[in-house]
Amino acid sequence: MNIRNLKTTKERREALEKELHVTLSSVGSFTLDESIASGRNCENMIGATQIPLGIAGPLRIKSIHDSRITKNECYIPLATTEGALVASVNRGCKAIIQSGGALVRAHKVGATRGPVFRMENLTHSTEFYQFLMTHKEDMQSLVQKTSHHLTLINVTSDAVGLYRFVRFVYDTKDAMGMNMVTFATDLLAKYLTEQTGAQPIALAGNYDIDKKPAWLNFLQHRGTMVWAEVVLSQDTLERILKTTAQKMFTVWLAKCMMGSAMSGSIAFNAQFANIIAALFVATGQDVAHVVEGSLGITTAEVVGKTLYISIYLPDLMIGTVGGGTGLSTQHEALSLLGVAGGDRGENAQKFAEIVGAAVLAGEISLLASLAQGTLAAAHARLGRGQKV
Amino acid sequence: MNIRNLKTTKERREALEKELHVTLSSVGSFTLDESIASGRNCENMIGATQIPLGIAGPLRIKSIHDSRITKNECYIPLATTEGALVASVNRGCKAIIQSGGALVRAHKVGATRGPVFRMENLTHSTEFYQFLMTHKEDMQSLVQKTSHHLTLINVTSDAVGLYRFVRFVYDTKDAMGMNMVTFATDLLAKYLTEQTGAQPIALAGNYDIDKKPAWLNFLQHRGTMVWAEVVLSQDTLERILKTTAQKMFTVWLAKCMMGSAMSGSIAFNAQFANIIAALFVATGQDVAHVVEGSLGITTAEVVGKTLYISIYLPDLMIGTVGGGTGLSTQHEALSLLGVAGGDRGENAQKFAEIVGAAVLAGEISLLASLAQGTLAAAHARLGRGQKV
Amino acid sequence: MNIRNLKTTKERREALEKELHVTLSSVGSFTLDESIASGRNCENMIGATQIPLGIAGPLRIKSIHDSRITKNECYIPLATTEGALVASVNRGCKAIIQSGGALVRAHKVGATRGPVFRMENLTHSTEFYQFLMTHKEDMQSLVQKTSHHLTLINVTSDAVGLYRFVRFVYDTKDAMGMNMVTFATDLLAKYLTEQTGAQPIALAGNYDIDKKPAWLNFLQHRGTMVWAEVVLSQDTLERILKTTAQKMFTVWLAKCMMGSAMSGSIAFNAQFANIIAALFVATGQDVAHVVEGSLGITTAEVVGKTLYISIYLPDLMIGTVGGGTGLSTQHEALSLLGVAGGDRGENAQKFAEIVGAAVLAGEISLLASLAQGTLAAAHARLGRGQKV
Amino acid sequence: MNIRNLKTTKERREALEKELHVTLSSVGSFTLDESIASGRNCENMIGATQIPLGIAGPLRIKSIHDSRITKNECYIPLATTEGALVASVNRGCKAIIQSGGALVRAHKVGATRGPVFRMENLTHSTEFYQFLMTHKEDMQSLVQKTSHHLTLINVTSDAVGLYRFVRFVYDTKDAMGMNMVTFATDLLAKYLTEQTGAQPIALAGNYDIDKKPAWLNFLQHRGTMVWAEVVLSQDTLERILKTTAQKMFTVWLAKCMMGSAMSGSIAFNAQFANIIAALFVATGQDVAHVVEGSLGITTAEVVGKTLYISIYLPDLMIGTVGGGTGLSTQHEALSLLGVAGGDRGENAQKFAEIVGAAVLAGEISLLASLAQGTLAAAHARLGRGQKV
Repeated sequence: MNIRNLKTTKERREALEKELHVTLSSVGSFTLDESIASGRNCENMIGATQIPLGIAGPLRIKSIHDSRITKNECYIPLATTEGALVASVNRGCKAIIQSGGALVRAHKVGATRGPVFRMENLTHSTEFYQFLMTHKEDMQSLVQKTSHHLTLINVTSDAVGLYRFVRFVYDTKDAMGMNMVTFATDLLAKYLTEQTGAQPIALAGNYDIDKKPAWLNFLQHRGTMVWAEVVLSQDTLERILKTTAQKMFTVWLAKCMMGSAMSGSIAFNAQFANIIAALFVATGQDVAHVVEGSLGITTAEVVGKTLYISIYLPDLMIGTVGGGTGLSTQHEALSLLGVAGGDRGENAQKFAEIVGAAVLAGEISLLASLAQGTLAAAHARLGRGQKV
Repeated sequence: MNIRNLKTTKERREALEKELHVTLSSVGSFTLDESIASGRNCENMIGATQIPLGIAGPLRIKSIHDSRITKNECYIPLATTEGALVASVNRGCKAIIQSGGALVRAHKVGATRGPVFRMENLTHSTEFYQFLMTHKEDMQSLVQKTSHHLTLINVTSDAVGLYRFVRFVYDTKDAMGMNMVTFATDLLAKYLTEQTGAQPIALAGNYDIDKKPAWLNFLQHRGTMVWAEVVLSQDTLERILKTTAQKMFTVWLAKCMMGSAMSGSIAFNAQFANIIAALFVATGQDVAHVVEGSLGITTAEVVGKTLYISIYLPDLMIGTVGGGTGLSTQHEALSLLGVAGGDRGENAQKFAEIVGAAVLAGEISLLASLAQGTLAAAHARLGRGQKV
Repeated sequence: MNIRNLKTTKERREALEKELHVTLSSVGSFTLDESIASGRNCENMIGATQIPLGIAGPLRIKSIHDSRITKNECYIPLATTEGALVASVNRGCKAIIQSGGALVRAHKVGATRGPVFRMENLTHSTEFYQFLMTHKEDMQSLVQKTSHHLTLINVTSDAVGLYRFVRFVYDTKDAMGMNMVTFATDLLAKYLTEQTGAQPIALAGNYDIDKKPAWLNFLQHRGTMVWAEVVLSQDTLERILKTTAQKMFTVWLAKCMMGSAMSGSIAFNAQFANIIAALFVATGQDVAHVVEGSLGITTAEVVGKTLYISIYLPDLMIGTVGGGTGLSTQHEALSLLGVAGGDRGENAQKFAEIVGAAVLAGEISLLASLAQGTLAAAHARLGRGQKV
Repeated sequence: MNIRNLKTTKERREALEKELHVTLSSVGSFTLDESIASGRNCENMIGATQIPLGIAGPLRIKSIHDSRITKNECYIPLATTEGALVASVNRGCKAIIQSGGALVRAHKVGATRGPVFRMENLTHSTEFYQFLMTHKEDMQSLVQKTSHHLTLINVTSDAVGLYRFVRFVYDTKDAMGMNMVTFATDLLAKYLTEQTGAQPIALAGNYDIDKKPAWLNFLQHRGTMVWAEVVLSQDTLERILKTTAQKMFTVWLAKCMMGSAMSGSIAFNAQFANIIAALFVATGQDVAHVVEGSLGITTAEVVGKTLYISIYLPDLMIGTVGGGTGLSTQHEALSLLGVAGGDRGENAQKFAEIVGAAVLAGEISLLASLAQGTLAAAHARLGRGQKV
């Protein structure tokens, strides 16, 4: 069987069924728009994978902007195959709403692309750096020619031996934007080669660093940074979370800080990745960016009989236009959140705030479960098909 | 709107549509078995998310077992919304098959759960450790009572201050198994508390460490370890990859080793996460485990005019039964690979080998693109909806 | 000037003075035994560097052995040029003694050497691993021939691509032992090459990993692991440390856990390196091992009005014989601690306990200073030459 | 014995000898100026530790300044107790000089101090950040009042939960400067508390991050960054290093890159710490800063039959005035290098270049030894007292 000779989704699927003696009827029973999907999202398409979509909420968010706070209430769409996850986030949302809502701040850092060049020697590398630092405006002009949605907002560089790494940081408005920034960086790399004689080695030299866990993204940030916090009232702790401030604090310190330190982790949290993954699948994000979304820290502090709890996401790569966001089920999930589409960056900003608050809900719920000692029981009940 | 009062997927979806003035008709147009999905995989279900499923291959695999090598040829199902990904893996498969197939080895390490206990003091911690090391058989007996699919194969422990972390390692056969090991660990934690007076703090103390990037999993491994390698022939390099061994080596060294070191990364590779994510979504794996799947190293070496290239995955958490693998589209994807179901661990082993070879295909293709300087062009063509 | 032609310390020093027009009279005014030092410790000797040696204490230690606790009281010799350090440790010792002494446990892990080999392919690598795991006794016999002070106690191995890393772990008794283990590993590497056809690349392949900060040593430990703890009484906190349990806890959590996490550090402590460095210089340890000694975690917990505080050193490379320990001033410092010489490992064990307790003293004092807000004042007073 | 009641070095030493029944005559036989040392460098002084001082070289350095290259030739003073180290550096110097000298660049980043504050909530944290970013000039004015040798050159900040970390970066001219920057930071912390209501938790919150291995210092740099490189000629490789370019490259790739990656290290080099430690002890640096000096990367590349080799130190904390640099033997070592004293930063810059070139010499020699397979033999010869 030669895939190249098969022109349609159906032809490819049927050829596979025949060759491998398997049935792909469920894969073939999709309702998404094949012409869009096969043209933009997926080559050699044979059908679609269906992931159950659940809902948690409502979740109440108070967003910090420069000089004011806006309020928002929403339901969180979570696409997952892991029983207990939606129920867990749902409980966290309830705890947040009972405690007056989550205070959230999202700060756009920008998408990065990090090419690597080969220098002739240390002198050349020094000159290249000086050129780079004194030609930011020229590079900004070049970038604007590739897309009016794109702005070059920062350039940093580090060198080792004959290697010179450059990290271009772009404002991509409402798009996650890796394609956009790849084109722009291609242009900038050619410009730099022309002007400085630097030899391009790779357009993406892992100094971006894209879809890999790395301290560079944690410490210098990438995409959007998000903080969310809430003070859980005593009543909430007792009635909804069935635990106490002190017990949750103890679990947090032992697990998120001590346990992560003892494991050599970049992630000092309870379950960021679970919530990020389910939200990313539901809303058409690039799922490989879950790796970066798993980075970050949860903090907790006992204040009298209440518990201050917060999350910090240093590296959230998201968008509300482009990529998978245009597919119909994903678009509906974004619409449900009121953040579909956009071209000024406001929807991506609002979406980032929602992600932050949802991640906070997940942390609250899991830490409470562990403090109660009911984690195993909850999974037995939900993951094995019993009633909620 | 109170979600709890709404009993069916339809009721919840319609209530949301009404309250939020949105349309969720695509989300509602699914064909998966709602009763299974809403019972086992997803609470508060409102529908399903559809992800385009593409196919790459064929891919040829030569698997190393204890004393023999078995051969396998398969097509790789990739569920993704990111244009160019399937085409990229496809090209890698072609390069591998032209070079005689990938040599692959998968070694089962086991699923881990890592509870944390509070000791009275250093003396107590020392005694606890001695108890733990001398009662492995008793604990193995306890574990076998929870499931005949489960075996406790190793126990390690580390201590700091009053904290004592334990890492239980289990053979979960063909299941990814986190639910199973959670139940078993719950039992073991109770046993240890009873026998040693240790105070349980959390059943999962980030010493597992689950769904977070961490050196512990890299260095002591988790799930299944996989290695895959191929020597790309000169002909393959020229005709399929349009580059040379030396150029690919240069990109690899600059990006995967230098770039990752300069970024403080745990992942010394080009795009493990992309392939892992698409395969995990397609086959019903826990998508949050993409975080762990992104860890690992790609190596390259010029041998004459050919290029030796390899990948190493130290922490692959996968299964062919349980979780999302039973949903119909996911099950079909596993069937297409010939690894659906199973109860002796053989399917999970075979699946791990396929994941390894597919990841190798992805590395080959991306490193070649970067060496050619055609990354931006490929994305422009595929990600923006032009013909392949 | 050709150094090779100058035969004595004096000749070299005078030649330098003449050629560079400098005076080296202080460097020349040493009292250490030149024949020993120039023969064993330092080639091309021109004299000696003098470092002020101060004393802190007494420090009270209760050591946990298998089934009993032994007590020890000692003075800590610290060679340093950094004003305020000795005073700081001294205050910590006072706090410890007032609170009844430090409970300490030292556990010998062993010195490691980690050669790297080149395999022919993945099959060869698998076979090599099987050979390694089934020939431990043969290797132990070989090792014993190199020195009767040396025992091979463990062998681990990890592989990536064509690289096979082996980590040999040795009991070196009272010696730090890197020279010994290098000779033994040289023999083992030759044996493995002969038996398996593996090509040796480097005798030390950074899988030891020697004198570099690395998670491998943190997570799998190296040299000796040490834990030390004390419960600081309310009286001690008030009168000696001029602070409270809660304040010290707050500083600890913010600095040692949060600050280290926010900095991407392998060291979750306040000033391990300061104490380790001063003790290592004073007692003739290999000063480059300060890098490994800086790893580790300090913990704190408020218990009523008292503060539980502990330190954990996962990677302490020390010895009481060999290297610089035989030089007269260093030997006197070890004698002052009652741990000079030895051949059964008991002195190194006892010395490790002392290092642990001294490091604990340093943590207590610095965290208290920070809690009081007197760090700057203390440095102004001591580091600038005013009276204690 | 109560140390506080003993007023002189002699009294303390004799009291210890009497109480512990030991001899401290060598410790007492020092020639350094007791009044200076006991006043500024070391409390509770009882004498001095003597470390053998050897010499390697000459070493030839070509330093890159903004628009010109200056040349320098020097001998490297190394205080060490580890046999074979001086000989190793010496061989590296010879290889460098035979290949025309090392090209070196040092770039001053600045000393950092990183206090941590407690915020009231996320809004307060946001406001604090805005205040910080808009009051740099006011803070610079405050800093200049504490010392005319000190300039505040940068301020960065990161936040998590209620914690706000600030990293002040200072130009400390020729001093390492941690005392200076501590005083200045104390003043700035008080100012910020006064102006913003932020509650100071600790003046040093591990966001500096001082004397701990951490990615923050690697990625954002600290103290002085240094690069050094040389192309080893074929003749040098054959006659002095007894190896080939290809063999050294193979060892470098396997050890410094692969081995360090497989060990989870922040240091991708062969033996930075050895050279840094010996130079730091010899020249009166703060020895605990060896931890930071161990960070960095060595690179290698085969160019025909020659080998390009380089080192990169991202975090070198050094000074030529203050601390231990004023002690007579240390001062003589700095004078020997032509960099003693200074107040405009030029000597520290020159010293940084020398450290970089010396570290390069160490890398060349050790990698060559490993390539030759003579490491064990060299240590047997030198570390056990045989002739060079």
